[in-house]
Amino acid sequence: MTLSLYTHEHFMKEALKEAVKGKEEGEIPVGAVVVCQKRIIARACNQTEKLNDATAHAEMIALTSAFNYMGTKYLPDCTLYVTLEPCVMCAGAGFWAQLEKVVYGASDNRRGFDLIGPQILHPKTEIIKGVMARESKELIDDFFREIRKKNN
Amino acid sequence: MTLSLYTHEHFMKEALKEAVKGKEEGEIPVGAVVVCQKRIIARACNQTEKLNDATAHAEMIALTSAFNYMGTKYLPDCTLYVTLEPCVMCAGAGFWAQLEKVVYGASDNRRGFDLIGPQILHPKTEIIKGVMARESKELIDDFFREIRKKNN
Repeated sequence: MTLSLYTHEHFMKEALKEAVKGKEEGEIPVGAVVVCQKRIIARACNQTEKLNDATAHAEMIALTSAFNYMGTKYLPDCTLYVTLEPCVMCAGAGFWAQLEKVVYGASDNRRGFDLIGPQILHPKTEIIKGVMARESKELIDDFFREIRKKNN
Repeated sequence: MTLSLYTHEHFMKEALKEAVKGKEEGEIPVGAVVVCQKRIIARACNQTEKLNDATAHAEMIALTSAFNYMGTKYLPDCTLYVTLEPCVMCAGAGFWAQLEKVVYGASDNRRGFDLIGPQILHPKTEIIKGVMARESKELIDDFFREIRKKNN
């Protein structure tokens, strides 16, 4: 029996580490990593506050970083791991990247791309959802709970 | 009678100038400007080739530049002018920016956001289409005609 270290959970944990980093910097805690041939080639947390840019989502930054690392305009052998279901913008970016897989944790019932439909991603992209969903959601719920506590 | 210099055509011409710049650098010629209170605060052409980044669309670069200029995370008083109908990713970015208006030139019957639906943009965003559509489309058609000629 061979035990693989490179499970979806393994890489999602790395995305969660990014989300925690984001939280420590006052960002909505969403993290992402891009994996190619079992190696993490890019990682990022949400940076909308730091960069004053509503488009600076973890996925966008990680994808741009992955393009840069690979030196290619497409990422057909890459998997994007992200703790929260991508929004329409990020799924649209995934379409252009022609990602092999998108693996996400918690669903986003307000802004997730799946509200519009899976056709936003590239037809070749496999979608796997719910990986470490509980941990991913808890991180976000805690974040907003703390914000509400501060504001009361 | 007051003649306004600040027509949609005026700003679309500026977006077209960006598109031409892109063409000269071997990019698919799409250009964008962001306007706030009749002033252009950001401008960009498509840079997917230059940056090896399939997400480096004119709109994404112009929006990030506009956030940077304004120092704010939203652009509710801004209009995005773009020569080609935004794709799903760029319309999704427009949603996050909460743009006042999106004005575009040519329709994109393959990748335009309107194939999915106007709900991708923010509900407050006004959409105006077809401004200098012919010029915008000609630029793109010429670009692909030249590429096909080179490849034959």
